[in-house]
Amino acid sequence: MGRWQPNARGRLEKAAMELYAERGFDQTPVAEIAERAGLTERTFFRHFADKREVLFAGSAQLQDLLVEIVAGTPASVKPIDAVAAGIDAIGAALQESRGRAFARQRQSIVAASAELRERELNKLSSLAGALADTLRERDVDDPAASLLAEIGIAVFRISFERWVSAPRDQDLRVLMRESLDEVRSLAADGARVGAARSEPVGHAA
Amino acid sequence: MGRWQPNARGRLEKAAMELYAERGFDQTPVAEIAERAGLTERTFFRHFADKREVLFAGSAQLQDLLVEIVAGTPASVKPIDAVAAGIDAIGAALQESRGRAFARQRQSIVAASAELRERELNKLSSLAGALADTLRERDVDDPAASLLAEIGIAVFRISFERWVSAPRDQDLRVLMRESLDEVRSLAADGARVGAARSEPVGHAA
Repeated sequence: MGRWQPNARGRLEKAAMELYAERGFDQTPVAEIAERAGLTERTFFRHFADKREVLFAGSAQLQDLLVEIVAGTPASVKPIDAVAAGIDAIGAALQESRGRAFARQRQSIVAASAELRERELNKLSSLAGALADTLRERDVDDPAASLLAEIGIAVFRISFERWVSAPRDQDLRVLMRESLDEVRSLAADGARVGAARSEPVGHAA
Repeated sequence: MGRWQPNARGRLEKAAMELYAERGFDQTPVAEIAERAGLTERTFFRHFADKREVLFAGSAQLQDLLVEIVAGTPASVKPIDAVAAGIDAIGAALQESRGRAFARQRQSIVAASAELRERELNKLSSLAGALADTLRERDVDDPAASLLAEIGIAVFRISFERWVSAPRDQDLRVLMRESLDEVRSLAADGARVGAARSEPVGHAA
């Protein structure tokens, strides 16, 4: 590849993903990413704040989309259905933008690095925080807002992992709907233990 | 305080918590913790692997307790009730061992440091992972095992935060039961969206 720079960002991303997969994230200097892409380090830093940004660049848009969809559902929609609509939208966006091959490669790169796993946890935690804020603006009280946000992000994350690791391509949105139904079944299953009543939790001890 | 060392661990912990609260975690060197406790750095490192250990020393026992309780519930107990029993037990242990004043101080120290917040997220993530493994051993399939583990840890974390930040002392276990009921109500509330089944589940609301 020459020194001209059309699609510099895409070339840098491709080179970075290849190198992270081949050698590991920690062992890949920016200089080598730039070299493989046929570009300079300076160009790299015009497109990405650091090496991690290559893997996390999409997360701000994902969060904006989630918030926008949940905030935009009519007030008559039940909170859990608003959350379902939100994660459905980000699932669709993920599938359509980069697809499963990218997601799978990214997932294995993240899994191999403690630093990246921490960053991923952080990202999911701020996604849950933004979702909880949006639910509060829809007049969902706490702790319901926080709980529902955590459930939504758990459904998203666990379905995403299933999608990425499945032997064949499935629809991420179908997996998320299945997981959400699973949550409903699990929750409907046990004994109601509310503080208003007096019996102990479960009958485990 | 003299140079004799009874309760060295307790003295180091007290000195560390004071200094973390006064100056911030990042600005507190081990040498000063040891000095305030009237002990040596060497003694500090006999009790704690590093500065963070002072704040996270209890988490391994907490995880062991959670796993033990969930694994020990009879097979007839519904998975969600087994999880409820597990978090109930760790809530009780937290209340009885150090109490709310310690938890509150610890919480504000953790909240003030990005490094500690990441460690906290990591700890909660491994707690959820251990809980999911335990549920799998109870023959709960995936994704139910992962989802239920995430829900259990979310209930635990959110109730813990409410307990710590409430204006007056409440029973952490009561808060956890309330949150778990909230999850049931939220889950029972929306439209069932799954592909496979057609009737709605749950009538808890």
